[in-house]
Amino acid sequence: MSNKKIKIGICGNGNIGKAVETVISNFPDMELVCIFSRRDPQETTSSVPVRPYSNILDYKGKIDVMMMCGGSATDLPYQVPEAAKHFNTVDSFDTHADIPMYYEKVDVSAMAGNNTSLISGGWDPGDFSEERAKFDAFMPQGLTHTFWGNGERGLSQGHSQAIRKKVANVKGAVQYTIMIPGAVERVVTGQQKTKLKGTEMHTRECFVVVDYSEIKAKNEQEFAEKKAALEQQIETDIKTMPKYFAGYDTTVHFITEEELKKNHSEMRHGGFVIHVAETGNGHKHVLQYSLKLDSNPEYTASVLLAYARAVYRMNQAGQYGAQTVFDVPVTMLSSRSREELLKSFL
Amino acid sequence: MSNKKIKIGICGNGNIGKAVETVISNFPDMELVCIFSRRDPQETTSSVPVRPYSNILDYKGKIDVMMMCGGSATDLPYQVPEAAKHFNTVDSFDTHADIPMYYEKVDVSAMAGNNTSLISGGWDPGDFSEERAKFDAFMPQGLTHTFWGNGERGLSQGHSQAIRKKVANVKGAVQYTIMIPGAVERVVTGQQKTKLKGTEMHTRECFVVVDYSEIKAKNEQEFAEKKAALEQQIETDIKTMPKYFAGYDTTVHFITEEELKKNHSEMRHGGFVIHVAETGNGHKHVLQYSLKLDSNPEYTASVLLAYARAVYRMNQAGQYGAQTVFDVPVTMLSSRSREELLKSFL
Repeated sequence: MSNKKIKIGICGNGNIGKAVETVISNFPDMELVCIFSRRDPQETTSSVPVRPYSNILDYKGKIDVMMMCGGSATDLPYQVPEAAKHFNTVDSFDTHADIPMYYEKVDVSAMAGNNTSLISGGWDPGDFSEERAKFDAFMPQGLTHTFWGNGERGLSQGHSQAIRKKVANVKGAVQYTIMIPGAVERVVTGQQKTKLKGTEMHTRECFVVVDYSEIKAKNEQEFAEKKAALEQQIETDIKTMPKYFAGYDTTVHFITEEELKKNHSEMRHGGFVIHVAETGNGHKHVLQYSLKLDSNPEYTASVLLAYARAVYRMNQAGQYGAQTVFDVPVTMLSSRSREELLKSFL
Repeated sequence: MSNKKIKIGICGNGNIGKAVETVISNFPDMELVCIFSRRDPQETTSSVPVRPYSNILDYKGKIDVMMMCGGSATDLPYQVPEAAKHFNTVDSFDTHADIPMYYEKVDVSAMAGNNTSLISGGWDPGDFSEERAKFDAFMPQGLTHTFWGNGERGLSQGHSQAIRKKVANVKGAVQYTIMIPGAVERVVTGQQKTKLKGTEMHTRECFVVVDYSEIKAKNEQEFAEKKAALEQQIETDIKTMPKYFAGYDTTVHFITEEELKKNHSEMRHGGFVIHVAETGNGHKHVLQYSLKLDSNPEYTASVLLAYARAVYRMNQAGQYGAQTVFDVPVTMLSSRSREELLKSFL
């Protein structure tokens, strides 16, 4: 591996994109080259150039890995298959049910451009996926559960964005995922003998700021009626949204923009993957991988940058196409030499 | 991947070897072919042939992966470099300080035979090593600690065997690793700002059965004096043993063979790797991988069999030589197809 720094671009200047900029200084083998944004470059403050997304091809050959930091609901599904033709990419696409189709699309693009694209990185999908698959490989007879929210409520960026992007007349929203305590207890103690459904493990709580500007009313009473109807519609749209909310015990609160900013801007999250299995004469084994994160975006960004290193190296080694965390050995992820890994980590 | 079963041999019929035989039924893509043992084959009970270790070469070409289940202190350092010339191998060599040298020796042998050898698998070294290196890759600015014993005392096979093999006049021994509670507390809460030494994190408690048969004495008093001197010598030999005990707060108890069997035959163990790191504006992140195992050998054997699958596949793919857990992506470990991994695990 050479001493040349890996040139990083950020595409999408939201929570994850900003977090990549914040944490990249922890990765001395990388340098940030440029940020691409759909927002007015004048409005963003950054230590590197901020260019409109439409100028991305001007940087072909000047960026080693493009961090694709748009949202899974509406940005990544078209941006990544486009970008992967021209750049190595890393993304955190997190609509679990759509991953196989997304993988195929990105793979075709990346192969066409001799590029390498890590899809669905971060911690779930990402770390958690890898642990689920490893636990299953080690003890296939066991039962794996994934809980999100780690003790307190966890702010899910994917679900929050889904509300903001997929539900009409929504100005702002956050969604908290909350573990159902009895379910955790039954799993941890091994009492749970069959796999729980997601809807049996978590509840969802949403705080939504509504855009009432389209309401046309002649008087206060008519406005109140239309407002209530609009909120009812939004609540229904959220609760029935497939893949994200349908089937879950979901609560929706309507709040003001000020309340959202004041009470819901911390992005703590976490959770754990737990695998319980028996061997031999009733010997129980509990395998657990757990995260408790003060800033979900900053942890996610850190993981994505480690995978950017892997993507760069895999591309150098001629391993093209779409990749997942399942394809990446630690030797590709780590900044350490083999000597150091053997001596200090094994 | 074909439907042919992976043919497994077991070399060494101690705790780990027996555990491989116990758990292999959980791996439907594998079949046990033969066990090689230095013990009298008449004395062992097994569903497959048990052959003397000296006959191992008769099975060349008939075994896909040889599970090298001898002890790290005296068996593996010579057996694996020998076996790796003729077989793909998996072992759980766990003398951390000697791993780099061991890796080189096994690598030369395996390369010479176009074989693939996974060294130092299991959970530490093994799972825990992989998590340490991954945590470091994700958040290199953080601090990693490894605690063994998971809440209760954990029976360390490596340390127990080191006493049995390296100390004269010892008939039997177990060693428990015990976490120092204050150290755990400081690390978990992030108060610990510098890396603790192993000796600051754990104490070691040993229960030893002495072989008094070499004592020659004319009377009871002389026997008692020689017995006390022998025990003193053994205690000193243990407490000063480099790499295993030197520097640790170690307690040694002398017990009878009956007591050892009655009170110390459970092989529970566990522990956790914990990484605490900050990003951005004081955001703390706690990453933890934890195991709680009723049977250390049966868990270790399960992990080793998953790596046997990886070794077999890597060898088929022409990836020869010594490998560590750092070299193995999940796609090699898992019995699942890519489609299944993407759909149900990512």
